[in-house]
Amino acid sequence: MMAQSKNPSKDRLWRNARLATLSESLPGLGIVEKGAVAVRDGRIAYAGTEEELPAPLAALERIDCEGRWITPGLIDCHTHLVHAGNRAHEFELRLAGATYEEVAKAGGGIVSSVKALRAASEEDLLRETLPRLDALITEGVTTVEVKSGYGLDLDNERKSLKVARLLENERPVSICTTFLGAHALPPEADGDKQAYIDRVANEMLPAIAAEGLADAVDGFCEGIAFSPDQIAQVFRAAQKHGLPVKLHADQLSNLHGAKLAAEFGALSVDHMEYTDEAGVMAMAKAATVAVLLPGAFYFIREKQLPPVEQLRRHGVKIAIATDSNPGTSPLTSLLLTMNMSATLFRLTVDECIAGVTREAARALGILAETGTLEAGKWADLAIWDIERPAELVYRMGFNPLHQRIWRGQ
Amino acid sequence: MMAQSKNPSKDRLWRNARLATLSESLPGLGIVEKGAVAVRDGRIAYAGTEEELPAPLAALERIDCEGRWITPGLIDCHTHLVHAGNRAHEFELRLAGATYEEVAKAGGGIVSSVKALRAASEEDLLRETLPRLDALITEGVTTVEVKSGYGLDLDNERKSLKVARLLENERPVSICTTFLGAHALPPEADGDKQAYIDRVANEMLPAIAAEGLADAVDGFCEGIAFSPDQIAQVFRAAQKHGLPVKLHADQLSNLHGAKLAAEFGALSVDHMEYTDEAGVMAMAKAATVAVLLPGAFYFIREKQLPPVEQLRRHGVKIAIATDSNPGTSPLTSLLLTMNMSATLFRLTVDECIAGVTREAARALGILAETGTLEAGKWADLAIWDIERPAELVYRMGFNPLHQRIWRGQ
Ligand SMILES: [Zn+2]
Ligand SMILES: [Zn+2]
Repeated sequence: MMAQSKNPSKDRLWRNARLATLSESLPGLGIVEKGAVAVRDGRIAYAGTEEELPAPLAALERIDCEGRWITPGLIDCHTHLVHAGNRAHEFELRLAGATYEEVAKAGGGIVSSVKALRAASEEDLLRETLPRLDALITEGVTTVEVKSGYGLDLDNERKSLKVARLLENERPVSICTTFLGAHALPPEADGDKQAYIDRVANEMLPAIAAEGLADAVDGFCEGIAFSPDQIAQVFRAAQKHGLPVKLHADQLSNLHGAKLAAEFGALSVDHMEYTDEAGVMAMAKAATVAVLLPGAFYFIREKQLPPVEQLRRHGVKIAIATDSNPGTSPLTSLLLTMNMSATLFRLTVDECIAGVTREAARALGILAETGTLEAGKWADLAIWDIERPAELVYRMGFNPLHQRIWRGQ
Repeated sequence: MMAQSKNPSKDRLWRNARLATLSESLPGLGIVEKGAVAVRDGRIAYAGTEEELPAPLAALERIDCEGRWITPGLIDCHTHLVHAGNRAHEFELRLAGATYEEVAKAGGGIVSSVKALRAASEEDLLRETLPRLDALITEGVTTVEVKSGYGLDLDNERKSLKVARLLENERPVSICTTFLGAHALPPEADGDKQAYIDRVANEMLPAIAAEGLADAVDGFCEGIAFSPDQIAQVFRAAQKHGLPVKLHADQLSNLHGAKLAAEFGALSVDHMEYTDEAGVMAMAKAATVAVLLPGAFYFIREKQLPPVEQLRRHGVKIAIATDSNPGTSPLTSLLLTMNMSATLFRLTVDECIAGVTREAARALGILAETGTLEAGKWADLAIWDIERPAELVYRMGFNPLHQRIWRGQ
């Protein structure tokens, strides 16, 4: 059944606009003053100066942008958006001074998210997830990556990824799904990490892959999660099934996760607070994207900054994302993520905007389809009531979106 | 002319709700389960358990809240909402590594806000301010304090305060105005702080007071602004004209501004990162409210935390606010302000919620009229789609407001 939100794309021409094309053939944000974007069959037919608009496109229905800015639709390339319940009570207890043990006794921690997800039906999960997705969409987001990782058994990981796929039927948005079975140890595993990883690699991943539920495979390489050897085992299984990999790495300590992921040609390494220069160099060589997650950095009050200067020096591309999740980043604003990236990580305005458009698309392996305003790509646009792009990064808690176009709709 | 947003209040009964009354006769948030709020003539006629609802009120038109939470309408007790232009370009230059001098040369700093405000008409200012006000209102804010302080001469300070008053005609919201002539030195003063303060105290303040444009008087006591003696001069003028005072104090250094303000019986002392225990004790004695402003703390990457433990120990009431302004806190979300207060300042959930309701009303001297759900006060309510109040503080970039009532409308 086609949801009512899916309308046919209309061929149109947005004119009298200023474009931040993010085209790599132009410097900085790829700015075009007095620009126009023509859309045919849901794809960009032209993005450039109004003056050079090919004559046949001038006949399209015209929309006067009155000098507003157009950017590519925003892309949130790292979320755990499909989850059940929240951890507000745990947050409250911590602020009131509760110890780790007291929080655990009160039912807190990731196990509470696993229990809640397992207890939820597909319908429950979908209903709980849509308001979070809508918060992103309201700010011009046109593509969202969604991970599993709170199911931790085949049925519940499958359920999570199915719900992620269903989001595309409910809203005009593109969803990229990621299988994150290697997120945490389920309670029934009784501490046996290796036995659980065997199950992830040999049973869960092949089934998920066979059903086409995942576009990529992720893991959490950390003392509190899985070892580099265990992650490598999962990555080998992913490669066997033709799925690209990415990794939550070096968030709390340096287990050389970035280097490991790069050796597997990972799409991205995510978090990276403790990544060392050898890891950064390995990523540069493998063209792996760095996905920085300032929401989690802020929320858990981390002090160790990701190696931004080294990433720049070695030419590693930088994306940024919400990491939207109930435990360490209950964040559903990509605009605020940009502000945090600038304020906390000192990314420049151009890096922040590229980080939620072109580089986020690259991190998801879909740069050929979206992420810049270039002919041939999906017509994913965000039109903003701003005087200059920096306003998207500078403000906190303000949404200047004028219009959002997903695949021409 | 009455703006169309001003509808007559309708007498109604909100039932099947959970109340965070913030009543001081109850512990914590003053929670009432299975509660009801009855509204007559724009005021709260009853707030308590449904069971004890007086019989005459049971006949009112009923609204089923389906178990949702009701809090007092939120109050932003410290803003510079009326301003012209923004300082996004300055933000961008700083991130790109520009020095203070380079930013000043490019037209940055508070002088740029003064120039922009002076060049703007009342209509311009109103049009620019309304989207910011709407961002607050969308999150359940029913009262907003607005300061002048970018005009820095009588005509332009008057213009700012007039526009602040006009906001009440444009939206269903209560506005408290504050004259902040002693905010910064205007460029034409040529460095002569004392001559400017004489003008503020002897000319501007009396005129503003005579026209009834200000509900209170504020100043900025800091090395880069005015000395304690100069602030005292302004405060004496305020007292002479019957206006209560408040102070931007101890934000960047300890000039003992908190103590000074307390000696004048100030409504509030705001910022307070560098306030010492003597200042806190003076505030306790004078029942002066501490207004903490985490948005500015975050945005300027301050490291010195306000003395929260001392405020608690000495029983000083704590409010929190956006400090919404173009230079150091371009923040228009009171929900995000709560999260920042918890995450950065370690305020508890109860302190954060009291800080944007009861204590914010106290900081404005209007606690008799609003700030709690108690009979006799204005019916300013926020109704939330949440399971527990902590969710208001825990989430970032998500708005769970279900309905907002201002004076019964
Ligand atoms: Zn994550
Ligand atoms: Zn201020």
